[in-house]
Amino acid sequence: MTVSDVVELEGHIIDSGLMERAFTVVMDLGGEFDIEEFRVGTSKDKESYCRMRVIADDEETLHPILHELHQSGATLAAPTDATLTPAPDDNVVPDGFYSTTNHPTDVRVDGDWVGVDDIEMDCAIVVEGVERDDGRLVVPKGSEVAAETKVLNGIEAGDLVVTGDAGIRVKPPERPRDASGPFGFMRGGVSAERPSASLIRDIAEAIAETKAQGGKVLCVAGPAVIHSGGGPGLARLVREGYVDAISAGNGFAVHDMERSMYGTSLGMDVETMEHPRKGHKHHIYTISEVIRAGGIEAAVEEGLITEGVMYECVDNDRDFVLAGSIRDDGPLPDTITDAVEAQNAIREQARDADLVLMLSSLLHSVAVGNCLPSTTRTVCVDINPATVTQLLDRGSAQAVGMVTDVGTFVPMLAEELLG
Amino acid sequence: MTVSDVVELEGHIIDSGLMERAFTVVMDLGGEFDIEEFRVGTSKDKESYCRMRVIADDEETLHPILHELHQSGATLAAPTDATLTPAPDDNVVPDGFYSTTNHPTDVRVDGDWVGVDDIEMDCAIVVEGVERDDGRLVVPKGSEVAAETKVLNGIEAGDLVVTGDAGIRVKPPERPRDASGPFGFMRGGVSAERPSASLIRDIAEAIAETKAQGGKVLCVAGPAVIHSGGGPGLARLVREGYVDAISAGNGFAVHDMERSMYGTSLGMDVETMEHPRKGHKHHIYTISEVIRAGGIEAAVEEGLITEGVMYECVDNDRDFVLAGSIRDDGPLPDTITDAVEAQNAIREQARDADLVLMLSSLLHSVAVGNCLPSTTRTVCVDINPATVTQLLDRGSAQAVGMVTDVGTFVPMLAEELLG
Amino acid sequence: MTVSDVVELEGHIIDSGLMERAFTVVMDLGGEFDIEEFRVGTSKDKESYCRMRVIADDEETLHPILHELHQSGATLAAPTDATLTPAPDDNVVPDGFYSTTNHPTDVRVDGDWVGVDDIEMDCAIVVEGVERDDGRLVVPKGSEVAAETKVLNGIEAGDLVVTGDAGIRVKPPERPRDASGPFGFMRGGVSAERPSASLIRDIAEAIAETKAQGGKVLCVAGPAVIHSGGGPGLARLVREGYVDAISAGNGFAVHDMERSMYGTSLGMDVETMEHPRKGHKHHIYTISEVIRAGGIEAAVEEGLITEGVMYECVDNDRDFVLAGSIRDDGPLPDTITDAVEAQNAIREQARDADLVLMLSSLLHSVAVGNCLPSTTRTVCVDINPATVTQLLDRGSAQAVGMVTDVGTFVPMLAEELLG
Amino acid sequence: MTVSDVVELEGHIIDSGLMERAFTVVMDLGGEFDIEEFRVGTSKDKESYCRMRVIADDEETLHPILHELHQSGATLAAPTDATLTPAPDDNVVPDGFYSTTNHPTDVRVDGDWVGVDDIEMDCAIVVEGVERDDGRLVVPKGSEVAAETKVLNGIEAGDLVVTGDAGIRVKPPERPRDASGPFGFMRGGVSAERPSASLIRDIAEAIAETKAQGGKVLCVAGPAVIHSGGGPGLARLVREGYVDAISAGNGFAVHDMERSMYGTSLGMDVETMEHPRKGHKHHIYTISEVIRAGGIEAAVEEGLITEGVMYECVDNDRDFVLAGSIRDDGPLPDTITDAVEAQNAIREQARDADLVLMLSSLLHSVAVGNCLPSTTRTVCVDINPATVTQLLDRGSAQAVGMVTDVGTFVPMLAEELLG
Repeated sequence: MTVSDVVELEGHIIDSGLMERAFTVVMDLGGEFDIEEFRVGTSKDKESYCRMRVIADDEETLHPILHELHQSGATLAAPTDATLTPAPDDNVVPDGFYSTTNHPTDVRVDGDWVGVDDIEMDCAIVVEGVERDDGRLVVPKGSEVAAETKVLNGIEAGDLVVTGDAGIRVKPPERPRDASGPFGFMRGGVSAERPSASLIRDIAEAIAETKAQGGKVLCVAGPAVIHSGGGPGLARLVREGYVDAISAGNGFAVHDMERSMYGTSLGMDVETMEHPRKGHKHHIYTISEVIRAGGIEAAVEEGLITEGVMYECVDNDRDFVLAGSIRDDGPLPDTITDAVEAQNAIREQARDADLVLMLSSLLHSVAVGNCLPSTTRTVCVDINPATVTQLLDRGSAQAVGMVTDVGTFVPMLAEELLG
Repeated sequence: MTVSDVVELEGHIIDSGLMERAFTVVMDLGGEFDIEEFRVGTSKDKESYCRMRVIADDEETLHPILHELHQSGATLAAPTDATLTPAPDDNVVPDGFYSTTNHPTDVRVDGDWVGVDDIEMDCAIVVEGVERDDGRLVVPKGSEVAAETKVLNGIEAGDLVVTGDAGIRVKPPERPRDASGPFGFMRGGVSAERPSASLIRDIAEAIAETKAQGGKVLCVAGPAVIHSGGGPGLARLVREGYVDAISAGNGFAVHDMERSMYGTSLGMDVETMEHPRKGHKHHIYTISEVIRAGGIEAAVEEGLITEGVMYECVDNDRDFVLAGSIRDDGPLPDTITDAVEAQNAIREQARDADLVLMLSSLLHSVAVGNCLPSTTRTVCVDINPATVTQLLDRGSAQAVGMVTDVGTFVPMLAEELLG
Repeated sequence: MTVSDVVELEGHIIDSGLMERAFTVVMDLGGEFDIEEFRVGTSKDKESYCRMRVIADDEETLHPILHELHQSGATLAAPTDATLTPAPDDNVVPDGFYSTTNHPTDVRVDGDWVGVDDIEMDCAIVVEGVERDDGRLVVPKGSEVAAETKVLNGIEAGDLVVTGDAGIRVKPPERPRDASGPFGFMRGGVSAERPSASLIRDIAEAIAETKAQGGKVLCVAGPAVIHSGGGPGLARLVREGYVDAISAGNGFAVHDMERSMYGTSLGMDVETMEHPRKGHKHHIYTISEVIRAGGIEAAVEEGLITEGVMYECVDNDRDFVLAGSIRDDGPLPDTITDAVEAQNAIREQARDADLVLMLSSLLHSVAVGNCLPSTTRTVCVDINPATVTQLLDRGSAQAVGMVTDVGTFVPMLAEELLG
Repeated sequence: MTVSDVVELEGHIIDSGLMERAFTVVMDLGGEFDIEEFRVGTSKDKESYCRMRVIADDEETLHPILHELHQSGATLAAPTDATLTPAPDDNVVPDGFYSTTNHPTDVRVDGDWVGVDDIEMDCAIVVEGVERDDGRLVVPKGSEVAAETKVLNGIEAGDLVVTGDAGIRVKPPERPRDASGPFGFMRGGVSAERPSASLIRDIAEAIAETKAQGGKVLCVAGPAVIHSGGGPGLARLVREGYVDAISAGNGFAVHDMERSMYGTSLGMDVETMEHPRKGHKHHIYTISEVIRAGGIEAAVEEGLITEGVMYECVDNDRDFVLAGSIRDDGPLPDTITDAVEAQNAIREQARDADLVLMLSSLLHSVAVGNCLPSTTRTVCVDINPATVTQLLDRGSAQAVGMVTDVGTFVPMLAEELLG
């Protein structure tokens, strides 16, 4: 006795790797397949189609295969509505909840496919506009059905959460028909051996293009941007509008403002590299003074901070989120010390971004990357190849990684964009 | 016209590097010195003494030299009382506040040297038991003078904060007269080329010795401990009492408990490395179930969690602190999401520890290391040499760094200690 | 006006990634395709077939597409004989020479497909047993046609070298129908987050299996194996026959023998880590004494060397190659100082190996990897993830990379295999 | 019963770390000391003096202490002539040979101190101009005594080699009285957190200063310089005379010339990063064509190579050494394939250099570094911090390490120097 089910794949499924992945999933997880129909797109712009019966010895084997195929973009040939189960409690998901990918996703409710808003990976899907009537789900007349992702700490008791794989449609990104600048398709490939200057030029172009199309650029920046001398360049990019928002930590902001107040970063003179030997004290002073002033905006207004990235953010009304961490000094009054609150602020920025520039900040880049759909362009820059690999693995379909020195990258990028 | 002041150094000041540092500081910062007296310790156990006049062109040059000499252990030849200045506001330090090192420190109040409690670097020193009378500071009869470190967010308006360098005595650690196991004196030196097995043996001995002397071992552990298969070994060390407390993040605890509940870590079967392909869902489920149960202790009690590091912590009543971060899923109810609160919990654990074992966790290790006095023994283990270097640079005087795989380190360490 | 040509792909071309690659190549290099026939393998063990017309604007565009398709396993639909052109001079290839992949390859001569011996990447193919008669190539009666790879420095004037892409058939490895231990298919994926102990267990099994099937295990070892304390474990593996051959450098052998002669490695006592402080002198002495004795074998025979990897090689008659490099001290009389000669010795060992274990030696591992066909199993172990990635990228189809400490890996591997 | 001996230290022995090291050596190696006299240099420019009796339980303990003190710059209070022992055979050192440091060294022969020429670490010292008469050594009338270092493979039977520590004087570098640009004193300290642009500016100044003083700049360059797009910048530096000599490998030269011949490096278009997909074939072709032409100079002369680093070397008559290695393709006719011959060529270049710029080439940088005295300024640039650390550890007293991207470093350096 075997069990089976039929799935379909459609689109540029060969060159986007979906067919390869589908075959591999079935074989790796102990199943068999029988291709019932296969139509290849005979030329570049034609799509392909595959209907495949997946066969396994038992339901325990079949189920994970279908789940995985499903998350890779296959759909059940005979779609049914999604199963909705009420969350048993706040912050608790029902048994068998559907855990999202970061790809665009639809959910089928009452025969209609509804797009899931704010797609983000590892979330639950909650459907609104549906009522439970005597155990059955009904869409009241005139009700607008909507679906959105919720992270675990956003789940409320009674939320109608999608469970199982039925009635869900995932659309993984397809290889673009036209090459698109520096961004590779899936794992863009990191290489320390690419010519750095020309790659920086291409990244500059992608930023300029994003801005020209009215898009938003979010920059995630670590303290190394300041230590390594990238502060003035980034400040110019903020001032001139090539960077619309900053996502950083307490440390980044303090180092940046310390530089404005004392010309040092962690006590080191950024221009001459001479150590004035009052060291870390400047760091604490900077925080103390900004606290005294009442926050970053107030400190800029009273003339305490006169240049730098935070100054330009305030002066040009750019959005910034400073997320706290356990290694912070202070912290600044602007720093969001609660991790959940900080994630929510990060999430909002991330959803708004069209291109994300991640500069030397593993912690914050992972946090931002966690909130991004696979369709947002990302640029990851770090001197540590392992960091770049880890960030690219998170899975934007349009990402470029660069193993380089942020202290030379930022000035060269600013030079490309601003001359 | 020049200005000058006289400082003294005393102890094993040559082989502990203090004399070298003193000369270097004076020269690097643009001063001159005149050695007024120098008595060398003629044999190993005799101390040396140096009285040195430091000369500079002006106060602006002299001051940082004296500050730096001072933080390196020099004392002013003619000690005066410390200057105490009230904090102008909550979380704000007075101008010229003294920023601490992590070395044992005394402060002179009313002619007496008072030890500073809970020494920790980059803090302010607050003195209690002193009153201000008409601008002057007096110690009321019967009052007990005490001094302690306070981080910026602990400062309250009116706290009497030490300002300037006068009346402070820092005692940097001296090179031990007897070699002490694997721990190097200052920057123990990291080497990937040391024989790993014998170094692990030495670390095991240091742990056993600490326990034999009634000391406490704190283990800071990252999620890689679990992924790499080090979970069972660490759980045994907790159970058998070689590890008294765990400092970790939300991710560590979830991976550990996921392993107990599903046999997977981030969806990967830890024994066979086969991917059951329900992936990250287990991770979210684990959190959801623990939330439902009401927390880790409750989850252990209701039999949800039956093995692993967190299980052993609960079962054997070991202290654990889970500090939240912006990359967390969930988080667990036990995770302290506020960074300041989490730092305070970490600080308490750190002060209690005699030996700290830092395993593959840069963020948490930095947070713990920030709270440690320079006298606590630390062992830093990471596969990334840059991480080990960064942790050793923080400055325990008795530290050993090991660039190795935590997935082989933990089993071998457990084997050494438990057979 | 466009130009076009027809190619065929056959086999498990979907799940082995060949179809994806073929589509990508055509699009990336500016061509179009028209699928003339496509038969999908309807179940796991059935092969697929694709006949595709590749269209481009001109020959300059078409040619590189065909070349790349070809190296990925496509064949021209209408095969012709390979073009053979005499090498114009020693060490000089004719214009348009065919540069090999590391996949099994056939060449068509006089209507027959002839397998290319000793396949190795970036070589030329030289055909023997063919004569030139009046500008035409003929196979004399009774002559046996053979083809082999030759590196540039092996080419002799007049050698008949394959030029162009016609008449060549490349067989890239296909995804195995059954999973095979720890070895991934293509870029096995390196992860520092796999459970180390179980991965080591799997590697041990793969070695045992190779030996059980009469295969040969070649170990490429760097000096870090000795420094890190892996020497005794590797020596046991050599003695017990789990390692058949050693490929290393002068430094490895000297450190190994220094350990036997003085108990130190680069002057450091391997057991106690105490530095006897005669340091590097031992290193030079070791070389000097082995030179005096007349070489490694002689040094073992006269009792100078009594244990270690080199001792076991001599005692158990295992083949070893020591390749010289510009950072060597000495060198030993056994070290092949000429790079070309050393490559030839390495090549011979590599061709003989069924499984190659690469331990902490980038230079030698690259040299060995350059000579391996894509069908040889390789295990790469290094503490530096960039090294492991670089080695896996070289392209064995069955490779596993492990980012770990060779000083814990070797003892644990020996323990698994030898108890 | 104890044994003892008296040593002296003289100079800036405190701030150069020699006194600290002396005390540490005695204690670490199990001895005691008795300071018989200590005069401190009372101001910056005055030297200190220490006479110390070293005491140990037996000769076996005392000897290594004295050896180590000696290599750190201590001299025996009662100097005697050096012991000279004939080498027993070619490439064989006599028992107890003195192994050199890389510091300036004198040897005492017949009552006179003779400077050792071409100091280099881990060598033997051979004295010339002395004759053996009836077992005694005599300096014949009119004979000029000279001493030089010899590597093991330079030793000839009968060479008079210094054995033991007597009669040798080592002068470790002292901390300069004036700071000197970016160069740190001993282990300059590597930091990824220094401001990159200002550090590059300082390095440019040091190069300009070296050239202004008539000094020579040697650049050790790896293939990554070309891949990463640093080729044109380095070519300009060679042309304009800021780089006097190149030390590299076969791969560097081939990549550089491939770029001139095909505009690619390893088959990748350096400007556009598009892969023309004839890939590695260009690499082999380049070599083949240069072989056909008869070498690099001939290839430049016949117009095959028209730009790049090798072109500028030929065109401007700059010295270059290409040292072979086992991972080379080809190799080029100019590549020295024998490791010993290559070392000799490297040695000659190294001795001639006043400043050495090491760019992304661990193997060649180690080889060059091995030949340098501790007085040569070195700049180490690599993206991998472990590489920079390893190179700095080799011990020039005036070294600066920079963890950065050579693909941004070289253009910025060229821009600084050439505008």
